[in-house]
Amino acid sequence: MNPKQTDRRRFLKNGAALAGLAIGASASALPAAAAAEPALEKVDELHLYGERSHFVTDVRNGSINNPERRLKDEAVAFGLRTPMQDSVGMITPSPLHFTISHSFEPPDIDPAEHHLLIHGMVDRPLIFSVDEIKRLPFVTRFHFVECHGNSSPRGPGGDARVAVNATPQETHGFTSCSQWTGVLLSTLLKEAGVQKGATWIIAEGADEPKHSKSIPIGKAWDDALVAYGQNGEPVRPEQGFPLRLIVPGWQGINNVKWLRRIDLVDEPYMAMMETSRYPSMRLDGKSRWFEFELGPKSVITRPAGGYKMPGPGFHEITGLAWSGAGAVKRVEVSTDGGHTWKDAQLHDPIARKSHTRFSAPWTWDGKETVLLSRCTDDQGTVQPTIAEVAKLWNADIDFLLKTQQVVGDFNAIQPWKVNADGSVQNALV
Amino acid sequence: MNPKQTDRRRFLKNGAALAGLAIGASASALPAAAAAEPALEKVDELHLYGERSHFVTDVRNGSINNPERRLKDEAVAFGLRTPMQDSVGMITPSPLHFTISHSFEPPDIDPAEHHLLIHGMVDRPLIFSVDEIKRLPFVTRFHFVECHGNSSPRGPGGDARVAVNATPQETHGFTSCSQWTGVLLSTLLKEAGVQKGATWIIAEGADEPKHSKSIPIGKAWDDALVAYGQNGEPVRPEQGFPLRLIVPGWQGINNVKWLRRIDLVDEPYMAMMETSRYPSMRLDGKSRWFEFELGPKSVITRPAGGYKMPGPGFHEITGLAWSGAGAVKRVEVSTDGGHTWKDAQLHDPIARKSHTRFSAPWTWDGKETVLLSRCTDDQGTVQPTIAEVAKLWNADIDFLLKTQQVVGDFNAIQPWKVNADGSVQNALV
Repeated sequence: MNPKQTDRRRFLKNGAALAGLAIGASASALPAAAAAEPALEKVDELHLYGERSHFVTDVRNGSINNPERRLKDEAVAFGLRTPMQDSVGMITPSPLHFTISHSFEPPDIDPAEHHLLIHGMVDRPLIFSVDEIKRLPFVTRFHFVECHGNSSPRGPGGDARVAVNATPQETHGFTSCSQWTGVLLSTLLKEAGVQKGATWIIAEGADEPKHSKSIPIGKAWDDALVAYGQNGEPVRPEQGFPLRLIVPGWQGINNVKWLRRIDLVDEPYMAMMETSRYPSMRLDGKSRWFEFELGPKSVITRPAGGYKMPGPGFHEITGLAWSGAGAVKRVEVSTDGGHTWKDAQLHDPIARKSHTRFSAPWTWDGKETVLLSRCTDDQGTVQPTIAEVAKLWNADIDFLLKTQQVVGDFNAIQPWKVNADGSVQNALV
Repeated sequence: MNPKQTDRRRFLKNGAALAGLAIGASASALPAAAAAEPALEKVDELHLYGERSHFVTDVRNGSINNPERRLKDEAVAFGLRTPMQDSVGMITPSPLHFTISHSFEPPDIDPAEHHLLIHGMVDRPLIFSVDEIKRLPFVTRFHFVECHGNSSPRGPGGDARVAVNATPQETHGFTSCSQWTGVLLSTLLKEAGVQKGATWIIAEGADEPKHSKSIPIGKAWDDALVAYGQNGEPVRPEQGFPLRLIVPGWQGINNVKWLRRIDLVDEPYMAMMETSRYPSMRLDGKSRWFEFELGPKSVITRPAGGYKMPGPGFHEITGLAWSGAGAVKRVEVSTDGGHTWKDAQLHDPIARKSHTRFSAPWTWDGKETVLLSRCTDDQGTVQPTIAEVAKLWNADIDFLLKTQQVVGDFNAIQPWKVNADGSVQNALV
């Protein structure tokens, strides 16, 4: 490689680009090195478990489930969203993984006392301790978990999603991605010996309302896993410590936290959440039940709502894309409101049913415009426009934006408007 | 897939295997669900940044650099080690990333005030703010960072490494792996325009002693990157917040933290650390200077030192492998002290200059034995025995184990002895 080469990767060449101020450089222009020395006593203890810089202040936002609201109004906002606008790579830091729970605080489970029961239509009912599960062959895989209401104009985040000043956290913060480690559910089912006629599993958590979910057994044989590890450490309490069922690519509600029981049965059990909250009612009175797989989706995370462009010039566009059907095959980006599209770069790892980081170079001319991203998955399914989503619902766009009903599985293209003053706003309002 | 199929993946079939107790199952055998409800006030605030379970207590061990010790005795233990024995997947949680610093506390840097200077033999000296760097095209890559003294019988961890009760944390805890996000150094060098004759870079940190390192410019053009992201969040202070130079596969000392300056020069600068501590002296009086690339290495993390086998039966063996030369191509495991070897399974992602998770099935017969793992990288280099390492050093094994001199780049095969009572011990003592 020739270091002197001038090519399109040189961002300074147009003068208006960003990259650094040309200076008469000398070491005296540098910031002073930190000088003060802390007290040495007990300094070891302070470093046994590291902390982030106090200058880094990103947190989840929203609210944990509020039972008073729950009793009065199901459509009210609840849940804590991941701060996607500052995300890098494709791993969500575990402390920032979104959480929606239909109960109160996560249960405080001693892993030495926790067990997983596999029973029902099996030859050998089995009960496993957590340590026993950790001694079995495991898999380690990147998978996103996404609430089926994520990015919906009427989802769990409430009005914040359609506010003009919404950030990617408010619009798309109910999805997160981790490296999960655990045992394939198929490994456990083979141990138990599934009987003929068992067509569904009922997964049950150890939380206070004992959240249960009916899942077709084909998914159990495919890629569902009983996870004990998340991003190199034990699953976090808010994510189901010590055991969580990961059902890759399917609505978040299936990923049962604090997993304590798998019941093999011959029909779905019409559990509370899957009957009272998750069927989708259309305008024509028809409803969809037992929807599972999440469609292709993407969102530009920077520049995006709440960001202020520092000025015209070069700015790499970056975002996340994912699909419940498989791997992300392609992401296109438009910097002119959809008139033209260009392929974005996909960054490794490009894993199945996982967030994938994308980026695309952009030189902003200082004029108002709209940024868009569009995901295509490896099944060939293309992320739809909001008009296409409305057609599916037998409704118009205004209905989607203003109904009080939760519209699940909403994966329309997200528009971000860049104003001439550099401010960036949510254009899906 | 036939759920009734009985094959080698059924771990219960031999009776002596572990996997679960067959019971007359009923829901009453389950642990009671958590019942108590916490106070609802301020519950939201408690969840803005999640915490791990209080039942999870893994921490780094060792000591942060102690200046009094440093002045008296360079060979004394210092540094904080990653708890590898409980690791899953191949990402090290950022709070548990090992740290060795030749200064005191990490500097407390305000990223808004921090800059990176690129100067010396360049056409256009440049100074970048952190925000400016974040607007450039980036890469996201898995890379390990490893201290060149990691796993050495005489490394920074001191006598703990050769204790019979050493865990993988004590033997191999000075390596960690993250998903780093940042700008390739080559991108910045192209902006600055490197002049003819510039053959080395000097990278300098903003820490109190201004740690500096000479690096051949070929590595800068290859894959070195200026990282601002680690595992989806900003680089941690102990790892160089806000900017760290990542020099993939090379001795940890090159990965300059708190990076503030890159000087393009025409020779190495014989900086303090690379002259006073890092040359390797052999018994014949010859020494090796400017060693960079770390060799292929692996360690079984479970069952390993400090673990207690719960009894005979099935137990998946698992561990980590890596090489500074490229990707891990193969890991072999021996469960009989090296008489026979079998290929382990490598788990995705298998990235270049990154930790790779491996596993291998094992059914323990309850007898004393020794477990070993051996890594081969994609250059065909095989992890050596300790006898082979001793030969390289023109020494014998006893010298390696007992010298007071730090023996760097020590990548010999690690033996774990399994005793008949199920205890597992360090056999490299």
